[in-house]
Amino acid sequence: MHQDSLSEVVLSTYLAQARELMGETRELITRALQREFRFSLKPDESFVTEIDMDVERTLRSRLKQLFPSHGIVGEEFSQENTSAAFTWSIDPIDGTTSLRHRVPLFGTILALRYDATSVLGLIDLPGLDRLYSGGMGIGAFCNDRPLRTMDVENDADIFSEIISVGGRSGFVKAGMPHIFDNIMKLRAHVRTYSDCFGHAMAIEGAVGAMVDFDLNIWDIAATEILVQEAGGKYVCFKRADGETDRYDAIFGKPRVVDWLLRTLAIT
Amino acid sequence: MHQDSLSEVVLSTYLAQARELMGETRELITRALQREFRFSLKPDESFVTEIDMDVERTLRSRLKQLFPSHGIVGEEFSQENTSAAFTWSIDPIDGTTSLRHRVPLFGTILALRYDATSVLGLIDLPGLDRLYSGGMGIGAFCNDRPLRTMDVENDADIFSEIISVGGRSGFVKAGMPHIFDNIMKLRAHVRTYSDCFGHAMAIEGAVGAMVDFDLNIWDIAATEILVQEAGGKYVCFKRADGETDRYDAIFGKPRVVDWLLRTLAIT
Repeated sequence: MHQDSLSEVVLSTYLAQARELMGETRELITRALQREFRFSLKPDESFVTEIDMDVERTLRSRLKQLFPSHGIVGEEFSQENTSAAFTWSIDPIDGTTSLRHRVPLFGTILALRYDATSVLGLIDLPGLDRLYSGGMGIGAFCNDRPLRTMDVENDADIFSEIISVGGRSGFVKAGMPHIFDNIMKLRAHVRTYSDCFGHAMAIEGAVGAMVDFDLNIWDIAATEILVQEAGGKYVCFKRADGETDRYDAIFGKPRVVDWLLRTLAIT
Repeated sequence: MHQDSLSEVVLSTYLAQARELMGETRELITRALQREFRFSLKPDESFVTEIDMDVERTLRSRLKQLFPSHGIVGEEFSQENTSAAFTWSIDPIDGTTSLRHRVPLFGTILALRYDATSVLGLIDLPGLDRLYSGGMGIGAFCNDRPLRTMDVENDADIFSEIISVGGRSGFVKAGMPHIFDNIMKLRAHVRTYSDCFGHAMAIEGAVGAMVDFDLNIWDIAATEILVQEAGGKYVCFKRADGETDRYDAIFGKPRVVDWLLRTLAIT
């Protein structure tokens, strides 16, 4: 098998391997949560725990064994092999605030990108015993259950949907706090299901759509492919912020996404 | 044993019986979620599912067998035996919007009141495999783990806490939408972990405090006793709204609750 070409067979093999890795990180996280753990403040004023570091170290070392020609980008350590055709993106703990406080809605995100597009995505939620995974042409799954997100039938049905939104600080950092404030006043059930729990709920259609701003590539890469493979719509705007790319994303049931884009005047 | 007097021994027995009932309702809910289920719109524009009705019917019938002299008040059916010293309050599904959309953060709430005070409280979260329960003088537990909520050490630590808030519509109905809007702008991690999931997170100290307005007695009765038995602080304002009593509550770690009362100028 040639590791640098894209085919459904190759992707299915990679996905099976990646799912195994998520089993390993889940075990690591579950064991770590039974003890006390250390955390520290990062320069950007977000917290990182020793669990974040351990999970990313484990994933990097296993990915390099399995896919020596692939690149890696992750939240806690620097980029590796950036000129590779395939690049894995890692968010070892998405929702570190939740993990730190033991709110069981954090998760681990892993994605494989090819030519600036996500081709595999995995979101593991240890606190809910749910692994969302899928790939281009392969479909999307919650554990082994195939996901087919149903769209709402008409715009009137949108008002009984739940709309999920990331934390207000992301919208402030993106220079668009009014979008968050307007979402909070929408005629719909709005919840701040932040981080990958919110993403997972949108992927499976439990929430109608999610609006999440000022993300890193490792926050959003898995969602990009999972939402679309589940039959949802994915709209993402890329902004340059200094040397970093930031992503503002809206995704979920197609009619709900379109309604949000119109109602919030996002273009 | 005399069923109308209050003692720790009596309460412990009642609690053990109530925990068994929650096992029955959890099984009922889990089975029901494997199928499609019907829902309808109530006069107050909230949804009710056939699962809500089945759970409340089951609890009422079992409570009447176990405690024939006790009163019962619940969300879906009318009050029974209201002059009794002991009254059970039932919210069969707290978070019906979540249940309806299969967001796994709904739960069943059961509480026993004596002389307008909660003496037993139970919150079962089937999607998280967690039963919070406790009673006056007995302590509070998550499954079998005793809960001892630690307070923050000083006001500076408040800003790394998560603050949970109920849906904005409750604040609108209470005539205080500005309180919700001000909470959203607090210098802290704010999440709309609504309904009993948010309450459970505050009871165990995963979130620093929760602000939840315009509640019914069956929404808040279990939280009243569980928060306090876990070492937290509980502040609740009762309002008359027509013939109904509504409750606006703030609860969690004592310093965080006090800071919220001051910062939001709630008196």
